[in-house]
Amino acid sequence: MASNSFGNIFKITTWGESHGKAIGVVIDGCPAGLEISDHEINAALSWRAPGRNNYTSPRMETDQGEILSGVFEGKTTGAPICIIIPNNNADSSKYEPIKDLLRPGHANYTYLSKYGIFDYRGGGRASARETAGRVAAGALAKKLLTLYGIAIVAYVKQIGKIESHISNDDISLLTSLTKQSPIFCPDAAANDAMLKLLDEARQMGNSLGGVVEFKALSVPCGLGDPVYEKLEANLACAMLSLPASKGFELGSGFKAVEMNGSQHNDLFVKIGDGEEKKIETLTNNAGGTLGGISSGMPVLGRVAFKPTASIRQVQDTLTIAGEKSSLQLPEGSKHDPCVAIRAVPIVEAMLALVLVDALLLNRCVRL
Amino acid sequence: MASNSFGNIFKITTWGESHGKAIGVVIDGCPAGLEISDHEINAALSWRAPGRNNYTSPRMETDQGEILSGVFEGKTTGAPICIIIPNNNADSSKYEPIKDLLRPGHANYTYLSKYGIFDYRGGGRASARETAGRVAAGALAKKLLTLYGIAIVAYVKQIGKIESHISNDDISLLTSLTKQSPIFCPDAAANDAMLKLLDEARQMGNSLGGVVEFKALSVPCGLGDPVYEKLEANLACAMLSLPASKGFELGSGFKAVEMNGSQHNDLFVKIGDGEEKKIETLTNNAGGTLGGISSGMPVLGRVAFKPTASIRQVQDTLTIAGEKSSLQLPEGSKHDPCVAIRAVPIVEAMLALVLVDALLLNRCVRL
Amino acid sequence: MASNSFGNIFKITTWGESHGKAIGVVIDGCPAGLEISDHEINAALSWRAPGRNNYTSPRMETDQGEILSGVFEGKTTGAPICIIIPNNNADSSKYEPIKDLLRPGHANYTYLSKYGIFDYRGGGRASARETAGRVAAGALAKKLLTLYGIAIVAYVKQIGKIESHISNDDISLLTSLTKQSPIFCPDAAANDAMLKLLDEARQMGNSLGGVVEFKALSVPCGLGDPVYEKLEANLACAMLSLPASKGFELGSGFKAVEMNGSQHNDLFVKIGDGEEKKIETLTNNAGGTLGGISSGMPVLGRVAFKPTASIRQVQDTLTIAGEKSSLQLPEGSKHDPCVAIRAVPIVEAMLALVLVDALLLNRCVRL
Amino acid sequence: MASNSFGNIFKITTWGESHGKAIGVVIDGCPAGLEISDHEINAALSWRAPGRNNYTSPRMETDQGEILSGVFEGKTTGAPICIIIPNNNADSSKYEPIKDLLRPGHANYTYLSKYGIFDYRGGGRASARETAGRVAAGALAKKLLTLYGIAIVAYVKQIGKIESHISNDDISLLTSLTKQSPIFCPDAAANDAMLKLLDEARQMGNSLGGVVEFKALSVPCGLGDPVYEKLEANLACAMLSLPASKGFELGSGFKAVEMNGSQHNDLFVKIGDGEEKKIETLTNNAGGTLGGISSGMPVLGRVAFKPTASIRQVQDTLTIAGEKSSLQLPEGSKHDPCVAIRAVPIVEAMLALVLVDALLLNRCVRL
Repeated sequence: MASNSFGNIFKITTWGESHGKAIGVVIDGCPAGLEISDHEINAALSWRAPGRNNYTSPRMETDQGEILSGVFEGKTTGAPICIIIPNNNADSSKYEPIKDLLRPGHANYTYLSKYGIFDYRGGGRASARETAGRVAAGALAKKLLTLYGIAIVAYVKQIGKIESHISNDDISLLTSLTKQSPIFCPDAAANDAMLKLLDEARQMGNSLGGVVEFKALSVPCGLGDPVYEKLEANLACAMLSLPASKGFELGSGFKAVEMNGSQHNDLFVKIGDGEEKKIETLTNNAGGTLGGISSGMPVLGRVAFKPTASIRQVQDTLTIAGEKSSLQLPEGSKHDPCVAIRAVPIVEAMLALVLVDALLLNRCVRL
Repeated sequence: MASNSFGNIFKITTWGESHGKAIGVVIDGCPAGLEISDHEINAALSWRAPGRNNYTSPRMETDQGEILSGVFEGKTTGAPICIIIPNNNADSSKYEPIKDLLRPGHANYTYLSKYGIFDYRGGGRASARETAGRVAAGALAKKLLTLYGIAIVAYVKQIGKIESHISNDDISLLTSLTKQSPIFCPDAAANDAMLKLLDEARQMGNSLGGVVEFKALSVPCGLGDPVYEKLEANLACAMLSLPASKGFELGSGFKAVEMNGSQHNDLFVKIGDGEEKKIETLTNNAGGTLGGISSGMPVLGRVAFKPTASIRQVQDTLTIAGEKSSLQLPEGSKHDPCVAIRAVPIVEAMLALVLVDALLLNRCVRL
Repeated sequence: MASNSFGNIFKITTWGESHGKAIGVVIDGCPAGLEISDHEINAALSWRAPGRNNYTSPRMETDQGEILSGVFEGKTTGAPICIIIPNNNADSSKYEPIKDLLRPGHANYTYLSKYGIFDYRGGGRASARETAGRVAAGALAKKLLTLYGIAIVAYVKQIGKIESHISNDDISLLTSLTKQSPIFCPDAAANDAMLKLLDEARQMGNSLGGVVEFKALSVPCGLGDPVYEKLEANLACAMLSLPASKGFELGSGFKAVEMNGSQHNDLFVKIGDGEEKKIETLTNNAGGTLGGISSGMPVLGRVAFKPTASIRQVQDTLTIAGEKSSLQLPEGSKHDPCVAIRAVPIVEAMLALVLVDALLLNRCVRL
Repeated sequence: MASNSFGNIFKITTWGESHGKAIGVVIDGCPAGLEISDHEINAALSWRAPGRNNYTSPRMETDQGEILSGVFEGKTTGAPICIIIPNNNADSSKYEPIKDLLRPGHANYTYLSKYGIFDYRGGGRASARETAGRVAAGALAKKLLTLYGIAIVAYVKQIGKIESHISNDDISLLTSLTKQSPIFCPDAAANDAMLKLLDEARQMGNSLGGVVEFKALSVPCGLGDPVYEKLEANLACAMLSLPASKGFELGSGFKAVEMNGSQHNDLFVKIGDGEEKKIETLTNNAGGTLGGISSGMPVLGRVAFKPTASIRQVQDTLTIAGEKSSLQLPEGSKHDPCVAIRAVPIVEAMLALVLVDALLLNRCVRL
């Protein structure tokens, strides 16, 4: 119900505007006994932080998160965990000149229609900055997953027409390759081609779309519920709640449309024998779920992001009052040429949040 | 939380297994004063019902829904509306021989892993039959939308490689063309090609994937919430909760990935003058929302469905115990060659449910 | 949110009006693997059923519940359990003459104000008949509690000024004594005095208030959450959701007001030694919780019920239109002289529902 | 679900421990356009603050709340409002010596059992300090109520055996008298007697229980829902979620038990004529609701609080390990002689929160 909350058991509530005093998150339902520190939160935040290189928006956010509650002597207590991230480096004055213009691809028109008021400074609540709270909460979720042997990763799968090719399922290798790339693309060849494309777009004052792929390994069989809380339904909801996302697919996704049943069905096979026996499927078109419940195969999907709405090119638009005008972004305002890049840590955070919640809920389904 | 419920204010809870005594739905939060009858529920159910032609599963479900509560003298009272649909035509005996086999692309493996028990008769709760309750509830939701001037439709956009081309926004024409097609495809040329393809697949004992497109017109500006309850997040969740769905996209969707910001941004324009003045956008790549909130433009998206998992061809598989075996569907068991077709009324129902809930929630956002 | 649902994990949704076709309940979140039968549901319903003796309303409800879903081969499957109870013995015609009168102590005035429509037949949704669904769900909850070693009971503690004195904590004895009493009062002396009082009230065409006490033994330490989901907060909510209830207290309750801290504080003591060591408190003014979380001591509280609003005496009132009138109950309409009596199985059901939900939620609080 | 949240539409989430860095609240769902300032929040907090006189705990909390989000140019924007209150004056060292003792009437035993960890400093999350967040949120709720013409108040009704007598329904007068009393008791004679009693208790190193009464006037007819979200059920839940509360009653409450139906039924009467015509009841034993829905009469109830658990007298107890010990509160630790006094602003805040939520929900019940 509460539109700023996500999750059932492991529930987060984010708050704060881009250029307000601070942003943050309250995590309610994190199991007691998890070791966590400001340092770990900040490591996650720094990965997400803009200004990290030329390909993401150069606003130098320090993004120092501070745990205000719910942790005692280095461990979670079961109480709600509030993490605050002050907004130190926000200069709202440059938004002043454009505050009366409808911004193409942005939300000020709809916010104004809905609420009759809009905090235009830096996009207010509609800013991608809101997602810092998700990443902070995701750091706890990811740590919990690790304790249960689940490994996750997200990376840039595509920018414009350039697609990366990732065949391996070694999450720690993929993570390492992803973090080495300035644009979170673990395929070196694709990375280079993408960098070239990004440079071109930036010179044109334009922007590019992209796809982020996510993967979770060693997810136990049984996560997710049969009907409205299907694992993929919750993942879809999580991913479409990200700014600029336009699509979601699991496993074969939209490619399934052109396949036959005989090609698409993943056949069951037995791996190993006796105690070690495991049931797997030969292929993974399903993307790790059957009937909404994890099957033990890798959970795998993709999220499409539109090209960044903020571009340097001048655009025709209207004033809030409906008069013709044109929008030129203020001198010095800088924007990501491709939001999909910065979305990588956020997709990973949302994946972690969905999995942890399903993991906890799954404790309640049997006698 | 409750995994068999959907919605916040207009909330539905579906119950029942494919071959149990009955299935049904409880609708809680429907505004009082709406005229509704069993007849209208059954008209919606009959559209969804299998057995309607050669291209959907020929199980002759009568699907006579009966309103048991919440309606007095022909009008809703604000009390919960329970609609029951008896399972009259279910022969479970044919499932007996295959009850110990893991069914490729099906959910019995994951249900067994999660719950330790599985109602194998007709797929139990995992059956598409569960969606009849959604369609019954959707009939109420759609009627409410009509009262508020919102028109919606869904249709088959693609089967296999054959894509239909629908350019008009006349919902009543689209609805009429869709209902005339045995496979819910309003484009006559595509309809013919798809029928041919479906015949071929059936002869091969195989199945096909498809895409269902949905559209809502005259949606007022302001529906949906900024963060986790973005209109598209709730739509994505709704659609990925449908059996066999593998992907969701809004507006430009995955095509946005290969566009530039200057192409993708929908520019604002003023239509008309004075009292009649309306703000629209020249294009609708956004698919009707900005920042998660409806913009007044058509809400437009697509859902990908995998090819039907049940095929006539013999498939290698395992027994529940993990021994090699093979699956041959029982003589006389019949299945849709393409689940996307039957998904059309269900996609439309989910669209209606998401929009009605957002419409009601939106009453609470201003003083 | 949904106003006809109760619980978080073990969640029930009741539906149906007193004189509609049927009433019922959907239970979502019952763990899989619980053995349950129609017979057990009906045993619980028959305990609640009116017509059981002269001291409860003599409408002869057969109250045959039928499980429609969620149970396969005698066991719950984890799917939602719908239980339906047809309304066989409802004669609505006698409500016709009084349908335009505001009924003192009844809800038709407020329902009409809120919804603009009211199903006046037998009180519609406001009827105590709604609680049959709670009792059916409570039967499952109570069975689950038994599996976890928790025993519960409710009984009549007071009618008018007559108070029963129950000092023992032997739940099975208390249950047996309670069921032997026609008015669910396990104290034989009080039972007799209450019967006399009830006879007098009936002769006067009047009604009496009462208190129901509930008790749960062997509740493990740890149930309930620290703040808004305190065990006592959820119990209070559960009990004040019962028709005609006016008050709730836990442990010492309102008596605590006149005590000193040194009297009220329950001192901790160690019982037994070594492996068998248990921590208890000498007294139980707390009523089984500390800080909202169960302490292992008996959970103990009371619910106050007002005298039945429907009385045989003629009462001044208004018509719906606001004109002066008077209300005489229709010939042959019969009503409980004291609703607290029939509330006993319902209080017990609500206690079971709150405890089961807390038990399941408590599985998620630690690593 | 989330145990630190309260409300459906107007939803609050409190966070923070007594001696952590800060405490606070996130309010999600406050309608846009409400004028609010730090100053108004702090005025509410100062009323609640301890140290205000000899009869409440003398810890000098500055309790300066700061709105961090959701307010722009002095008005709410519809975004979540985070209010932070730093913990400036918390000296945890004095809790060190007693950290291994079970504290009678306190929650450390149950927290430890549930979570395996307890933030013992100042009671951690179990401290009444958590309620400061409720009061901050309540200030917004109360302001909203005022805009809709609803006036509310709470005051001390009873301490020990001394009861105050308040007959008037003039909320602004009651508020003024209440604020003039150091112990929030608007009846001057009772106030004096209570002060004497409190002095005696303090000299004895003991504590007293009390009753807080609350009242809401001009509540429109229609608030609250018929079954589980009855207005009184939500009020009961709200009040029993307060630390040290042991009971709740609405209207006649437990007194109803000794009344007859003919006495208890509130008879409907018409006040005024024509346009001005209003329907009221002669008496208000119901306490302002019928069938869970507000009737337009004053909403009136009471909350019982146990005597403060922290007393200066030495008490027998156990160590966490179960060894016999005794508890003497640290020198200089000071505690309220009667928690009911400080509960007054919190009861009022909870009343405001319940009413605002019901007011917003009620916007969705009709076409």
